[in-house]
Amino acid sequence: MYLDYKLVENAVGRLVPDNVNGQAQVPFMGVGKYHPEGHKAAPPIPTMADYQDPNKVVGSLREALEKAGLRDGMTISTHHHFRDGDLVANMVFDVAHEMGVKDIRWFPSASFPTHEHLIQYLEDGTISHIEGSMNGPLGRYTSEGKMKKMAVLRSHGGRYQAVQDGEVHIDIAVIAAPCADPFGNANALYGESACGLLGFALADSQYADKVIIVTDNLVEFPCVPWQIHGNYVDSVVVIDKIGIPEKIVSGTTKITKSPDRLYIAELTAKFCDAAGLIRNGWSFQTGAGGTSLAVSYYFAEIMRKKGVKARFVRGGGNKYMVDMLHEGLTDYILDGQTFDLDGVASMREDSHHVWTSPFTSYNYHSKGNFAQLVDVAILGATEVDVNFNGNVVTHSDGYMLHGIGGWQNALFSKTVILPLPLIRDRIPVIVDEVTTLVGPGELIDVIITERGIAINPLRQDLIEATKNSGLPIRSIEELKEEAERIAGGKPQKPHLGDEIVAAIKWVDGTVIDAVRRVIPED
Amino acid sequence: MYLDYKLVENAVGRLVPDNVNGQAQVPFMGVGKYHPEGHKAAPPIPTMADYQDPNKVVGSLREALEKAGLRDGMTISTHHHFRDGDLVANMVFDVAHEMGVKDIRWFPSASFPTHEHLIQYLEDGTISHIEGSMNGPLGRYTSEGKMKKMAVLRSHGGRYQAVQDGEVHIDIAVIAAPCADPFGNANALYGESACGLLGFALADSQYADKVIIVTDNLVEFPCVPWQIHGNYVDSVVVIDKIGIPEKIVSGTTKITKSPDRLYIAELTAKFCDAAGLIRNGWSFQTGAGGTSLAVSYYFAEIMRKKGVKARFVRGGGNKYMVDMLHEGLTDYILDGQTFDLDGVASMREDSHHVWTSPFTSYNYHSKGNFAQLVDVAILGATEVDVNFNGNVVTHSDGYMLHGIGGWQNALFSKTVILPLPLIRDRIPVIVDEVTTLVGPGELIDVIITERGIAINPLRQDLIEATKNSGLPIRSIEELKEEAERIAGGKPQKPHLGDEIVAAIKWVDGTVIDAVRRVIPED
Repeated sequence: MYLDYKLVENAVGRLVPDNVNGQAQVPFMGVGKYHPEGHKAAPPIPTMADYQDPNKVVGSLREALEKAGLRDGMTISTHHHFRDGDLVANMVFDVAHEMGVKDIRWFPSASFPTHEHLIQYLEDGTISHIEGSMNGPLGRYTSEGKMKKMAVLRSHGGRYQAVQDGEVHIDIAVIAAPCADPFGNANALYGESACGLLGFALADSQYADKVIIVTDNLVEFPCVPWQIHGNYVDSVVVIDKIGIPEKIVSGTTKITKSPDRLYIAELTAKFCDAAGLIRNGWSFQTGAGGTSLAVSYYFAEIMRKKGVKARFVRGGGNKYMVDMLHEGLTDYILDGQTFDLDGVASMREDSHHVWTSPFTSYNYHSKGNFAQLVDVAILGATEVDVNFNGNVVTHSDGYMLHGIGGWQNALFSKTVILPLPLIRDRIPVIVDEVTTLVGPGELIDVIITERGIAINPLRQDLIEATKNSGLPIRSIEELKEEAERIAGGKPQKPHLGDEIVAAIKWVDGTVIDAVRRVIPED
Repeated sequence: MYLDYKLVENAVGRLVPDNVNGQAQVPFMGVGKYHPEGHKAAPPIPTMADYQDPNKVVGSLREALEKAGLRDGMTISTHHHFRDGDLVANMVFDVAHEMGVKDIRWFPSASFPTHEHLIQYLEDGTISHIEGSMNGPLGRYTSEGKMKKMAVLRSHGGRYQAVQDGEVHIDIAVIAAPCADPFGNANALYGESACGLLGFALADSQYADKVIIVTDNLVEFPCVPWQIHGNYVDSVVVIDKIGIPEKIVSGTTKITKSPDRLYIAELTAKFCDAAGLIRNGWSFQTGAGGTSLAVSYYFAEIMRKKGVKARFVRGGGNKYMVDMLHEGLTDYILDGQTFDLDGVASMREDSHHVWTSPFTSYNYHSKGNFAQLVDVAILGATEVDVNFNGNVVTHSDGYMLHGIGGWQNALFSKTVILPLPLIRDRIPVIVDEVTTLVGPGELIDVIITERGIAINPLRQDLIEATKNSGLPIRSIEELKEEAERIAGGKPQKPHLGDEIVAAIKWVDGTVIDAVRRVIPED
């Protein structure tokens, strides 16, 4: 563990490290309070004189990494569009291990259970630490203080911001691409590993010193459209298989069958209707979870009944959104990460199913972004507290098992609604104080549970609009107490050490919270 | 005129200024010899906190320019996709004049006869000088030494390079857009002023401190596709009319009817065939001039006869290319600048008619670019000399009346062919030494005239391949002598002063030649 820091209190009362692995940090100052003064990262100027052969194909991943000058202490980035079906990140570190390099910072846009393979390289020193969302085993490993340095978790937009601002310098970006040409143009629309888009690797391609495309589907120039520009690419590597298709996209996405979840979803849609949010030209964002899909389903029902259509819906694209587009219930899908095969096909074939990126949608250090334009964002959380603060990375037992994703970024939508079960695994979801503060309560407007709806007092307009709706509006304290009554008390306090294992970044690069080491029960 | 420079001899023996308007210059060192050492330009980091309203529409162009902080000595950029139909650049300086600001550097991607309007502002000090290709009146004005500072001419790729590398810092980019939304997303595919694409403004949007979109066609968010990202945009201005449609695109593009030009075009196609260049999967680039169109026509004939198809053709898109795409003679059109309405419609509707930019196609300070991938480029010239050096900016009388366009950039194609009339306006086109050296002879492979074909001795492969073709292959000296015989002698020496009025940049930012003041005849 990295322990050479002092703790400082930030604007939401959380103690956060003054530096992360030696790099000084700015504690969170409040929403919109930190003002960047510097300039964007400035990559070295390349010259075509060094790229006289537009055929950049090299013989192997090792050759590409050697050509890129891989050495101890470098930062390697990868993307997570293949989710748990990714084969490339593991390969990269197999090669790094084989080459004998040490102390690599791995900078994925997210990691998944399949990357448990890399624990051996965290153990043997090939990888010093991970900066990026950790879903599952690597999160557990990190939580228990086993990583040599401190982890850093960022939102999708925060990751773009960190690279753009030069906070994270990527030495080598390895971009797995379902379709690529020898010049390095690449997309994710065609090929056996098609996952729709490559936006999570956009910043990497623009700002990394060296960029390697790894593909299992080399096509003749031009690879059209180019989601990644070959003009940023150094080498192209062709391998047999970059991902396991069944795990890349889920194939089918299903609406929840749980009566409780369905009820929450229906209540969410009814709330939006009562609040006057569902009108012609509106927009909303939902995820691909079972409850989110159900919310979309009920939104569609209401739109049909009212005879209104959305101007756009924001994905994770999926079958249900595609159906809405085809039915004419929305003009556009703006998609950042496709979740099923219908979504991929639609993105390939329909110009109204538009690929976006963390730059367009989520980068806070930009002249605005698309999240601001979304009327209603439907998001999840592991915990919410009585001040409406939200947590998405740790559970009440202290374990950090999830990434931030686009969650923090989507909080800038005009109305943010969290449909949540009151109890999960017998533990209340509404608590006195979130274990980890990932999103400040001032940005979270409504909590919707199977036992009632709590509206943030900051949103008097919503309180006013729904007061005679007949909906079960309650205070968040009431919901919390009910959760505790059902669960038989508050969640147990987690068993934590003093040491910080991960810093949680806000969208502007400041540190909003820190995750402490979990002391395992046994 | 700016006169505070010393002349230095560069690698092609031309005397060039050691600085331009006080900014030190690197003399041309030879193709591929200059190696940039620095980093790309690093724009200030913005924050969404300063852009809380995603509706960026302001009341007037003046308001937008004031908001952008326009003041004396700044650099304002515009693009030339509207060509001679542009109304916006003139408006910008009408406002600047009205505001009383002085000494503005105008950095257009090119200027046209319509911009003669701006001579009054060059006279009264509103504009200090122009950096950008000058077609017509402004070129004549500059040639006669009337501009206060030195002009700089760059290729399309060189302009991207200069902005990217921080050589030219744009304070305010004004981007006229046929279609835009209030957030600033913009394209040129829809609306009365549709011109196809906005690639010439790409660097401006990415690197300028402030970006203003001017549109006559505001659509609801999202404006899809976004050729310009609203995330870079500060303000959106809506006006009645940004361009004169008939002048933006020519409406119809016509093949030459001149028997001589047709013969040259046919000879060009025959030469390519004899040299084995026209094969399945090949690629070529032609312009939209009458002779170029005729070459495309003959290429299509040969492809039909041989039963082969091109992988891609590079535009200036136009009706003839679109017909080829529809007929299946090419898989793709890669288009940087659409020249007629058929081209615009095709680009809007056909995903195989792809918009490119100076970044993808032409930026030399990149990890390669598309020009390298083109098999055959058919280009023009005002003069060529016996060393195969080419000139596209001045005439033999010394007047600078044309821009470089993509000409220098396209020289990096695998085979560069210049179909030229031997004589133009009674003046030989092939000369002892070009008036202005814009492209080094080592990159120009073949000159094709109505009196014969000259192959650069560096291309022994082409000489070998065509030696038994029966085509009229001759030496360039022979062609020059014949031209002189017909014209009754060499071109008259231009009447030039000592003063440099314009620096000609090479694709890597070095200075390849300089244009001297013309002393008018009267």
